Amino acid sequence: MKIAVFGTGEVGQRIAGRLAGLGHQVTLGSRTAGNETAVRWARENGGAQGTFADAAEGAELIVNATGGLVSLDVLTAAGAANLAGKTVIDVSNPLDFSAGFPPALVVPEEGSAAERLQRAFPEARVVKTLNTMNNTVMVDPSRVPGHHEVFVCGDDEAAKAEVKELLRSFGWGDGQILDLGDLSAARALEPLVLLWVRLYGVLGTGDFNFSVARAGLPV
Amino acid sequence: MKIAVFGTGEVGQRIAGRLAGLGHQVTLGSRTAGNETAVRWARENGGAQGTFADAAEGAELIVNATGGLVSLDVLTAAGAANLAGKTVIDVSNPLDFSAGFPPALVVPEEGSAAERLQRAFPEARVVKTLNTMNNTVMVDPSRVPGHHEVFVCGDDEAAKAEVKELLRSFGWGDGQILDLGDLSAARALEPLVLLWVRLYGVLGTGDFNFSVARAGLPV
Repeated sequence: MKIAVFGTGEVGQRIAGRLAGLGHQVTLGSRTAGNETAVRWARENGGAQGTFADAAEGAELIVNATGGLVSLDVLTAAGAANLAGKTVIDVSNPLDFSAGFPPALVVPEEGSAAERLQRAFPEARVVKTLNTMNNTVMVDPSRVPGHHEVFVCGDDEAAKAEVKELLRSFGWGDGQILDLGDLSAARALEPLVLLWVRLYGVLGTGDFNFSVARAGLPV
Repeated sequence: MKIAVFGTGEVGQRIAGRLAGLGHQVTLGSRTAGNETAVRWARENGGAQGTFADAAEGAELIVNATGGLVSLDVLTAAGAANLAGKTVIDVSNPLDFSAGFPPALVVPEEGSAAERLQRAFPEARVVKTLNTMNNTVMVDPSRVPGHHEVFVCGDDEAAKAEVKELLRSFGWGDGQILDLGDLSAARALEPLVLLWVRLYGVLGTGDFNFSVARAGLPV
């Protein structure tokens, strides 16, 4: 599958690398073509690199792994026509580090950053997922022992099904993929990153993940 | 122990009932003395009832189980002198249902409702806990199978130790009580109720709880 990953940070590189390893044709998108990090990533992972628009143009699926506060600009740079009809996986978190640590969560008037993107690009099929865990766990859930979850939400059922298939290819079991319904659930998922940041400090590792304990789970 | 529980809703009655069952002298506080619900609760549980000030005056420990949007008014009515030096367990969630369902979370300028209370009543020792689960689970964690957590945070270590002791008496194991540090962690805990509300809808039961999957947990 031809996939564009937006964002050359740790999250973008991690997801892009995993996708390339699974045999997908991945283009890592950044603000400018020839971005040093993107060029190195492409060389080391047998992928491609280019601007957000370059990456999005030929892609069948897009992963937004940019910072949540710049995502709207990034998707705008990618171009609405290049997003139309495509599944856009939004992994971003709208965290504001301008006042230092811990960061504050920015809640746009749409209720969540994901809904803001969906409203700005109504022809894209935005699916929020993976934003509630460390990037190493995103692509390798076996790093965390026991039962734990990846949450998924979005307004388009077909897009969600496509995303779940991708998650399964990352190693997520069916019982670990918890569908929370439409995209408004992003209002509940994005703030979870605040607890993640706190737990990271308390536990001293990123190898943890949220789980919803309940009857009927595998022991 | 003499304990005041503020709030005659389901949460307040549930916690007050559990505390009375454990042998504590519990007074259920409400806006007016003689509140019908409070009178019935007191009769059925061998407890007392009265205004918030009545309840707080003789109490050694206070549980705030009122709605998060009225808690500041409630504590004001209780009286700063009646709170001074006492542990105040804040179970509340600042949810705004005025625009219907799902509710929106109100984030005060202090960062969280718990910090707002602490700043307004600096001599109280506010501990945030139990706000991330159904009231039935708060007082009986065995309703949820497997490992799951109750989060605790607050600025006063002695107050937190007192609260953990109370949690243990409810049935929480040491390994289930996760101390997140100072009260600013409430900024991460209060938004979790949004995910709780969503999960309640998806799972169709309140018998679930959050867990942080990680190495070293009991299987």
